[in-house]
This record gives sequence, C-alpha cells and structure tokens, in this order.
Amino acid sequence: MTSLADALLRPSSVALVGASDDPAKTSGRPQRFLAQAGFAGCVFPVNPTRKTVQGERAWPSLSSLPQVPDHVFVLSPSESVIDAVRQCVRLGVPLVTILADGFSEQGEAGRAREADLRDVLAGTRTRVIGPSSIGVVNPRNGLLLTANAAFGEMQPRNGRVFVASHSGSMIGALVSRGLSRGVNFAGLVSVGNEADLSLGEICEATVDDPGIDGYMLFLESMRHSRALQKFAYEAAQRGKPVVAYKLGRSQAAARMALTHTGALAGEDTVADAFLKDCGIARVGVLDALLETLPLARTIDSHSRGQRRPCIGVVTTTGGGAAMAVDQLGLRNIDVQPPSQDTLAKLRAAGVRANPGVVLDLTLAGTKPSVMKATLEVMCGAPEFDLVLVTIGSSARLYPELAVAPLLEAGERRAPLAVMLVPDAPQALAALTEGGIPCFRSPEGCADAIAAVFSRRAARAPMPLQRAGAGAALSEFDAYAVLDAVRVPHAPAVKLRFRDAVPQLPFEYPVVAKLCSAAIAHKTEAGGVVLGIRDASELAAALQRLQQNAELYAPGAKCDEAIVQPMLAGVAEALVGYRVDPEAGPMVMLAAGGIWTEVIRERSMRLAPVDIDDARQMISEVRMLGATAARRGHPTGDLEALARVVSSLSQLATAVPHVVEAEINPVKILADGAFAVDALVYMQPAR
Amino acid sequence: MTSLADALLRPSSVALVGASDDPAKTSGRPQRFLAQAGFAGCVFPVNPTRKTVQGERAWPSLSSLPQVPDHVFVLSPSESVIDAVRQCVRLGVPLVTILADGFSEQGEAGRAREADLRDVLAGTRTRVIGPSSIGVVNPRNGLLLTANAAFGEMQPRNGRVFVASHSGSMIGALVSRGLSRGVNFAGLVSVGNEADLSLGEICEATVDDPGIDGYMLFLESMRHSRALQKFAYEAAQRGKPVVAYKLGRSQAAARMALTHTGALAGEDTVADAFLKDCGIARVGVLDALLETLPLARTIDSHSRGQRRPCIGVVTTTGGGAAMAVDQLGLRNIDVQPPSQDTLAKLRAAGVRANPGVVLDLTLAGTKPSVMKATLEVMCGAPEFDLVLVTIGSSARLYPELAVAPLLEAGERRAPLAVMLVPDAPQALAALTEGGIPCFRSPEGCADAIAAVFSRRAARAPMPLQRAGAGAALSEFDAYAVLDAVRVPHAPAVKLRFRDAVPQLPFEYPVVAKLCSAAIAHKTEAGGVVLGIRDASELAAALQRLQQNAELYAPGAKCDEAIVQPMLAGVAEALVGYRVDPEAGPMVMLAAGGIWTEVIRERSMRLAPVDIDDARQMISEVRMLGATAARRGHPTGDLEALARVVSSLSQLATAVPHVVEAEINPVKILADGAFAVDALVYMQPAR
Repeated sequence: MTSLADALLRPSSVALVGASDDPAKTSGRPQRFLAQAGFAGCVFPVNPTRKTVQGERAWPSLSSLPQVPDHVFVLSPSESVIDAVRQCVRLGVPLVTILADGFSEQGEAGRAREADLRDVLAGTRTRVIGPSSIGVVNPRNGLLLTANAAFGEMQPRNGRVFVASHSGSMIGALVSRGLSRGVNFAGLVSVGNEADLSLGEICEATVDDPGIDGYMLFLESMRHSRALQKFAYEAAQRGKPVVAYKLGRSQAAARMALTHTGALAGEDTVADAFLKDCGIARVGVLDALLETLPLARTIDSHSRGQRRPCIGVVTTTGGGAAMAVDQLGLRNIDVQPPSQDTLAKLRAAGVRANPGVVLDLTLAGTKPSVMKATLEVMCGAPEFDLVLVTIGSSARLYPELAVAPLLEAGERRAPLAVMLVPDAPQALAALTEGGIPCFRSPEGCADAIAAVFSRRAARAPMPLQRAGAGAALSEFDAYAVLDAVRVPHAPAVKLRFRDAVPQLPFEYPVVAKLCSAAIAHKTEAGGVVLGIRDASELAAALQRLQQNAELYAPGAKCDEAIVQPMLAGVAEALVGYRVDPEAGPMVMLAAGGIWTEVIRERSMRLAPVDIDDARQMISEVRMLGATAARRGHPTGDLEALARVVSSLSQLATAVPHVVEAEINPVKILADGAFAVDALVYMQPAR
Repeated sequence: MTSLADALLRPSSVALVGASDDPAKTSGRPQRFLAQAGFAGCVFPVNPTRKTVQGERAWPSLSSLPQVPDHVFVLSPSESVIDAVRQCVRLGVPLVTILADGFSEQGEAGRAREADLRDVLAGTRTRVIGPSSIGVVNPRNGLLLTANAAFGEMQPRNGRVFVASHSGSMIGALVSRGLSRGVNFAGLVSVGNEADLSLGEICEATVDDPGIDGYMLFLESMRHSRALQKFAYEAAQRGKPVVAYKLGRSQAAARMALTHTGALAGEDTVADAFLKDCGIARVGVLDALLETLPLARTIDSHSRGQRRPCIGVVTTTGGGAAMAVDQLGLRNIDVQPPSQDTLAKLRAAGVRANPGVVLDLTLAGTKPSVMKATLEVMCGAPEFDLVLVTIGSSARLYPELAVAPLLEAGERRAPLAVMLVPDAPQALAALTEGGIPCFRSPEGCADAIAAVFSRRAARAPMPLQRAGAGAALSEFDAYAVLDAVRVPHAPAVKLRFRDAVPQLPFEYPVVAKLCSAAIAHKTEAGGVVLGIRDASELAAALQRLQQNAELYAPGAKCDEAIVQPMLAGVAEALVGYRVDPEAGPMVMLAAGGIWTEVIRERSMRLAPVDIDDARQMISEVRMLGATAARRGHPTGDLEALARVVSSLSQLATAVPHVVEAEINPVKILADGAFAVDALVYMQPAR
C-alpha cells in the first residue's frame, strides 16, 4: 500500500468526491487548482449527477474508478461524508481528507457524526485528515489538493519548509507572507479537527522527506501533544528544526480557543514548557514564524541547564542597533561587548569602532571590507553564541555591497543573524537566498533569537501514564512516597488522638496536624496547631484537632495526627508534580507562602529533570532568588531546593501511579530544604 | 525676520557651508538632493577654494552672499563649525543646522566645543539644530536639506505627518518603511544633540502648519522633556496626535543610551508615565510607529481615570482574529462579545454569525453586503469604543470587494480598525489612502490600540520647580508637611529622651522611633522599638533609642523620639512624590513592605492627580489589589489609599519646596489608610 507520506504529498492519483462543475465554487476549486498547477498524477472528479466536470470525465462513484486513488478529497456536505469515507475504507484508500465542518465542534449531532466516523475507520488502514481541513498542498509537484480560495491567485513556489496548521485560513496567509519574504514551502497541510490523524502524526510521516528541512506549525491548542512530541523528537534526531506559533498566550485567547474549535485550551505555562522540552522554538511574533527557521538551523537545541546565550552586535546604525538591544533585553537576553582580546584583534584588523556594548561601525564607514574584517573577528571570537548585524540605509541603497560581506564568510564559529533597519527588499531576498537568518523588524528578530535559544534538547515521549483524578493519601503516607524518591522532609511522628503523648524524637516546639486521607485541606478544617511548647500543650492540641475533625467532616475516618518540629525557613517554595492529560508528567516550581497566591510566577518542565534543569527552573522564578537572599536574613540553600525539585520529578519513572503531588511549602533553610507538608494523589494499580 | 517654522520647512534660500564638488561625498549630497528634488528656493554653495560646486557658482563665504539665507546647513568638519555659526549670528541667519559630530558626546574637548557654541548663540536670534543632525527634509517643496545617503535613492512623497528623531539613521529607515506602507511625510528632522533647539521646540514650531496633521517621534532618551510636554500639549489643543517610539524599555538599552549619545537615560517607568500624561501614544513595535496615527486621530485622548476600552472584533478568519485577541489580551485589553441587543440587530440585518467573543463571519461568507450590514450594526452599538475587523484571504484575492464595505460606511459611533492577515498590499494601500487605521501584523495592531487607549489627556507643563537634593526633615516635621496636604497619618507624640513618660493620648501597645532630621534611615540605626506595652517599657525604649543614636551617629542632633500606636493593617503601600529633573513633579504608588523590595511593580503619574487618577493607579498595581483582598483577611480600604495618593500628589502645587516625599508604608486598614512613617526632603525657600 502507498505510504502515508506518499499519499499525502506524492499521490499518483487523487479523487475529488463531490467536485463541482463551477470552478469558482468551493467544491470546484481543487480541480481547477490542480489543473492550473500542472499536477501530473491522475485526477478523478466524482459526481454522480454529471457526465463531465470542468471539461473532464466525471465518475459516478469511487468504486467506478479505474484504480484505487492514493488520496481522496471529500468535498461533499457533512451529511454525506460518512458514506464517502465508508466507500474509501471498502476500497482500501490509504488517505482521505475531509473538507466539511459540522463534526465535534458543532454540538451533540456533530459529536455523534464524529463518533460514526471513528467507527467506520476503526481497525482499517484508511487514515483521515480533518474534518474541517481546507486541504493539502505540495508546491513541488503541483499538488494543490485544496479548496483554499487563496490559491486561486497565488502560485506557491518550491521551498524546503513544511507547514502544518490547525487553522485553515492561516495557510493562505502564510503562503502570501512567505511569497513577499522569499520563504517558500515543500508542503502545507490544514489538519482540521484531527478526528483521526493529528498534526504530529501528519508531520512525522514527512520527517524522512529529503526535500523538507524544517517545520512551521500554527497551533491553536495543545491537543494530541504526545504525537506532537514524538514528531518533534524524530525531527530533532534528523536535525530538522521546528518552529511554532501557538495561540493562547493571553487568558482571553485561551478562553476563545475553547469556543472556536472545540479543542481543549491547555494552560499556556504548561504548553510553553512542553514545547520547549520538545525542542520546538516557540515564537510570539507572527513574522518570526516565517523568519526563524534559518536561525534555528544554525544553532543547536540547547542542552538543558545551559547558561544564557551571549550575543554580540555589530551595527552601521546606532538607533537601529539600540532597537534590537532593547527588544532582546525585554526578553532577558543581554547583548555583550567584545572582550579585550577581541577588541585588540579588531584593531589589528584595522577596524575603528566606537566603544560600547554594541560594535558601532558608523564612524568607520560602511565599507564592505570593514564589515568583512569585523565579522571575521567577531564570528571567530570565543565569547559569542551569535553575532547580530543591524544594517541601516546601505542595505537599501547598495544591497549587493551591503550583503556581500555577510554572505561571503566561510566557516564561522559563531553563527550570524541580520536585522535590516530600512525597508530593503533586495538585501532581504539576497540574504534569504543565501540562507543567512535575516529579519525585518526588531521585534521579530529578538523574538526569533529568544525562541531559538530557549529551546531545550528534544525529549522522547515517556511511556504513557494515567492522568486524571486519584485518591489523596494522608500526609504521613505522602511522606512515604517522598521517601521513595528521596525528597527530604521534616521528621514526623504519627499519634492517635486517644493515645497518651509519648517522648518525641525531636525537640519542642512542634506542630500537630490532622492526618487523614479524608481531609486534604487541613487548614480549612482547623487541622493545624502551631507552636506547641510541651507535652501537655500537645495533648490539648490533639484533643482540639479531634474536635475540629468531627465538626468539619463528621463520620470521616480521622483518628490520627502528625507531629513535626517547627522549622524556621529563610524562604518557602511550592514544588509540584502532575501528570498532565496532554503533556504527560510535569514538575512545577513556584515561590511559596502568600507569593504563590498573589503572583503566578512559575517554572515548569517535563519530568523527570536533572539537577541542572532544576537549577535553571529556580533561576526562572525571580521571586525565589529574591526571597532567599533578602537583606538582613541568612541566604537560603537553593542548591538543596534544586535537589528537592529534581527528586520529586523522579516520580515520573519511580512511582508511576502518582497522578499529582504537591509540597507546599518546601522550607528553605540556610542549610538544606525540607518538605513540611505534602499532598499526594494516586491511582490504584490495576 | 523669517519665522522658525518657515526657516525650517519653507526657507526662501539656503546656504551649504563646506559644500563639496563631489556629489557622492557626504558634504556634496545636500546640493545634489536639492537639485534632484527641484527645490525652488535659492541654494548657495559656500566653498572658499572653488569657483563652482557641482556646476553652480560657489561663494567664498556667507558674508559674500547676495542675501542673508533663511537656513544655513553647515557641512564642514567639527573644528570649523563655531566659526561658521559665528558668521551666521553676525548676519542674523535665523536657523543653522550642524552636521558635524564631535561635540558633547565626545569627551572633554567636545563638551568645551559645545560650550563655545552656546556662548556664540547666547542672546542672539540665531537658532541651531544639531550638532550631529543629518538634516531637514520637506517633501512638499523639495527641501532635501540633508546629507542622509538614503535620499539618493528614495524620493519621499508628500504626506501630512511630521517626523522628529534623535537618531539620524532612523529617518531613512522611516521614509523607506513609509514608502512601502503608503505612509508619507510633511517634514522630517534629525534633531541631533539638541545643543540649542530641542526636539520639542522644533516640533512646536510646526504645530500651526495646516499641512501637518500628526507627529511621529523616535526618541532615544527623555532629555528636554519640558519642551516635549509643551509641544505635545499644543498639538493636542489643535487635535494633532503624537505617536512616539522611545528606546530604553529594557534596562540593557537604557544603559546603552547612556554611552550612545551622551544623553541621560531616564528610568523607563518615569518616561512611560510622562509620555502618557503628555497625551502621547507610546508604541513598542516599530511598525506601529508608522501605523498608529490614523487610529490616534479617530480616538480622543482618554480623560484620566476612564474605564478600560471595550473592543469588538469582526472577522473572516478564526485564526487571524485569535491572533489579534491574543495580542490584545497580553496588553490587558479584553475583547468583548456583542450585547444581546446588538446580536438581535445583527440577526434582523440578516447576518448569520458564529457565536463567541469574536463575531466570526466565516460561515456567513465574506460577501461585501454581509460585511457592510455587520459593520453598520457593530459600529453603531453603544458598547464598543472600537471595532476591529480582521480580514483573511479575501483582502488579497479581491482587495476592492474586501475593502469597499470598510471604506463605505458614513459617520460611525465607534471607529474602525482593520488587520490584514495575509500579505495584501493592494487592500492595505486602499485602506491607508481612505484614512482607515490598518495594520499588517497582530503585534503592531494590538500595540497601536493599547498605545492609543492608554494615552491620557495632555497636561500643560507645571511651573518649573527645583529638583535635586534637599534636606531631610524629621519624621515629626514630615507629618506637618503631610498635614498641609491632608494625608492622614497615625497619631504621633514627640518625647525628649530625658523627659519623664507622660500620659499618652492613645492606647498601648505603641511604637517608639528616633526622631531626627540627621537620621533618615531609622531601622539601620536601631531606631525603632515595636510592641511597647506600658509606660515603663516606653521609658526603657527611650533609653535604648538614645544609646543607639549615640552609637550610630555620634554627635548628631538627636534627642527626641516619636511615639505612635501600633496599627495592624490589612496591607501596605508605598506612596512617593518626587520632582524629577526632566519630567517635573511625579507621584508613585507601589505595594509596600517586602513587596517593594522584591517586585518593582509601580504606577506613576505626573502630579497632581485627582481621585480618579489615583484609583486607576491602584488598579495598575496588581499586587495591591491582591494583598488587600486575600482570602481569610478583611478587605483593605483602597478608596482611602486613593485619597492618600491624590492628597500627597498635591505637594506639586501646595508645598513647592518639597523635592521628595516618601510614605513607606501607608497602612491600609479595613476602614481608612494611614501613613505610619514618612520621609520628606525640602529645599530651603530662597
């Protein structure tokens, strides 16, 4: 049988079910576009009511065709889609794309229709793109198997980038923006509702296509993210970078995604961490989606825990460079001046540059020879991970002279990126053609650089774990789970309410807390007594806890308390672990105490993480650094906190039935860090 | 004498001092550009070494010219600039533009040269643009009085926007980007170092030019901000909006501005508040600098304290609209769905729209008649301050059809803005031509909308006040200043260390603090004793304070303490007042206590502010709202805090010698808000 990749991008024959004779109608467009683009394979219009369609012989049904088509595009209305797919299954068609909407995004009837579709496909080798897919395009062979009106006017050019989009209308926007920008494509797919094939599976089918060397994704949500992760991992193995624009950065848009496509809107912090851990460069500026791949190709995905990148800037315009530095600074990327050694080499090469953070060649003139000598030194300097060149008017006035020294240089230690300050289409085209990462706005430039450097090494998906609700453990049992992954916690003794107070293995003052799987939120239940100074106070506290438990949860199984020493921390953190239904196991770090409530500053990663990852997570929660190093207080042991984070994240492999764990707070002392409360939810092993 | 406006943009004659015969040289360009552009006034090349320059008669000196030129462009090297200016003064030339650098930005010698320049100008009617000005351009009359190489290739077209820029190289970038965007100019000035005329003064000279109806500023710093404020106020009076892109949003760029032009880099929070209070729309995206003016024209500067704007969105592409909504959300601007009433009107007009936050016409098709009916209802709906239309492929495919309904509508209650999702140059040009605010990226679109709605009504500059260091008052005297502007504070009694403890006019427990103008930072001095429970503890506390004062500041005048009751607040705020040397009197609000130290979330305004302003400032400090309404605590009286902020800001007019005041903290109670500490610095009245 034809492979999915071939059926998708190189079908030898396609059928258009419901093709219209009117080439202007949506269902008439694919036939017109295929003809205009000179698609060399067979095209079979299927239309039982006509002898010919747009001048070609029409076929009454799929079963009447002289051969089984590799790819069927169903253009007929929602009601008749299932029948068409059923015929495809019967004939063994490998791939069907469905245009119609009216499935899961449209109420009860739509969901029932989608369930029918799945039933028809179950156990067969027929795969489906859509419903609500506007189609598939391969500019390399004229496969304009699409109803997208945009292709009536545009002829996409051959390129090496594959596009997959949740939004059909964005396909046309990306092609038109690409045309104006010299960015062309090796394939574009509107994945629609992903009732069968998900965006990740479709992309993965193409990873070995030698004509594709990078991916652009337009994502509305994080659905089917395991498949996305698998694809991104395979792409990374082959050195093919992936760039994504994902909606839902603001809460408003996240709410909108919910109503717009019926897809579940994941929380953006989770999505962001997930994409980075997939090695995907996530951009936030639309133009950067088109401009980032050349940069992503020249820079390796960062190994985790790496230091922040060091960017050197060379400019022929002070104002232009300042815009780039400003935008980079807003993304926490600092531009660094050349080292003394590099400055000496520049001087030796005859480059007279203004002093400062940025190497300003305005005074030295914009002679190509000066730029060439400068780049030879700067790109060879050991301190830079990237050299950014901002070019002023010369890029527009003398495009050939201006880009020559950028294109010329041979092997470079540090790669190059270019920002053009004026509108300079010729220079832009020449640089794009030459494979030099180049940008036409300071925002797109900085966004791309930040996206590329904040990728982490792509991780393969973990074995599937159950997510969802689990049963809470008592605090004492939760500590046993922490013990299994070596998360240190304050010493704890369990006492029954009715027992006499024994000799404790630690000093007073102590804290006593209700200890019951039935009462997860102890504070609300009046289940915490602090500052107990001796055995008699402890006895009284136990009595009080018992009374409060009976009031709060009458009849609940709750006859024990947990007793711990009072620990005075320098600062507090919240460390969490959760199996996300889409992204899989994740570990989360936030500042603890009131900080958690008031400020939602958090760092997340796919779990497990090593100690370097954990250190980087700590550096991402500014508040933690600030509270752990306050004037007039001892400094908190953040290294111990890093061990807690890394250890808790090992739940992902060590204790697979945990669906959620939260340590709130971890007390950070001057020496050490300890869990002083813990909530763990588990699913029973089945 | 020729007015500054005429000398700047409509000189009847110009002289080029140091004009080169080589039209490719920097000093040869202005003559070439003026000839190419067909400037109709007289052009006098001044060059003592030649008979002709570029084929025209050359003049040996300014004094040999047959008339006194309106505008002299000095192209000669730094060393000979002063002599040329001296001649201009002698002849009574109204305006001189200086190209050379080598003045205040270049060390001791440069600063001396600039001082010489000022001396030459002092008391004369000759005004100077520069040094380091690349020149002045007026496309309306071919005045290409510029050495900017960019104009060798570009012919700027006539427009109605005036540009002033601290950066000379950005002039070329803006003209080229404008040309590609259909945005043209009525004048462009590179203001250089502003040794004499500042950017604000130059712009103000043009406010009555009927050919100018808006301003674009590219600012590297906030120098000469009083003149900027005065200009912005005059422009606002004439309904001419001002848009500014100001560098230094990131700390990195602020540091860079310091080295780049010698200008002082103001703190960005101050600059941002200042620009908004000038009624200037500050954009953060470069493209938005070019795209914002049409929107700024249709929307009034907000009166202060106004509610957040309500934006309605109509779209022909779900993905495209979602990008806009996302970007608006990131800027805290929420898109609102149409009201039930508006939906009913839409239905009555035959518009079938998908339900949701955004009015999605994808299903209804993109027929012009549907769009027209939709806009009639949406732009007439009382709930919207702005209706944003995002247009997909049709903008590129059928530009005329797509833009017709946008251009057609007559008087609209709510103005319209358009975002084009594909690259659609024809539609963009038609909309720009028609004066409809239109944007080609979601980031530029959202940035412009946010900038326009966050402007406040322009304020005229306050009478000049002295800034800088003042003398600290004691806490007790500081309260007297607060009393003068009716800021409530905790009751306070002053006791001398050696006196017996009297009966207090309030209950114990109390706090006792050192009270001395010599010890501003009491905590460091061990000068605060909390929780004093009775008279004997108070006596002991006074003794301790005396000892600590003698240890901390031996010999300082410090023989008193201030005693206050302990107030248990729900939350704390820091309220500050300061006369900024550039921006003038400002009031600042931040969350108090450890929050101030850890998070630099602040709100600022030019002082004084009324109660509505103060409320809005509170809403801008998220932390305050969060800490004042924490679970399990009484709600803090933020209305009382607003009164404190407004009252303190009255220092700007009521107590003019105060240069700085800080209340840290204001205790916010469930009922009321009180200063419990205060620092005031005053300059003696002279």
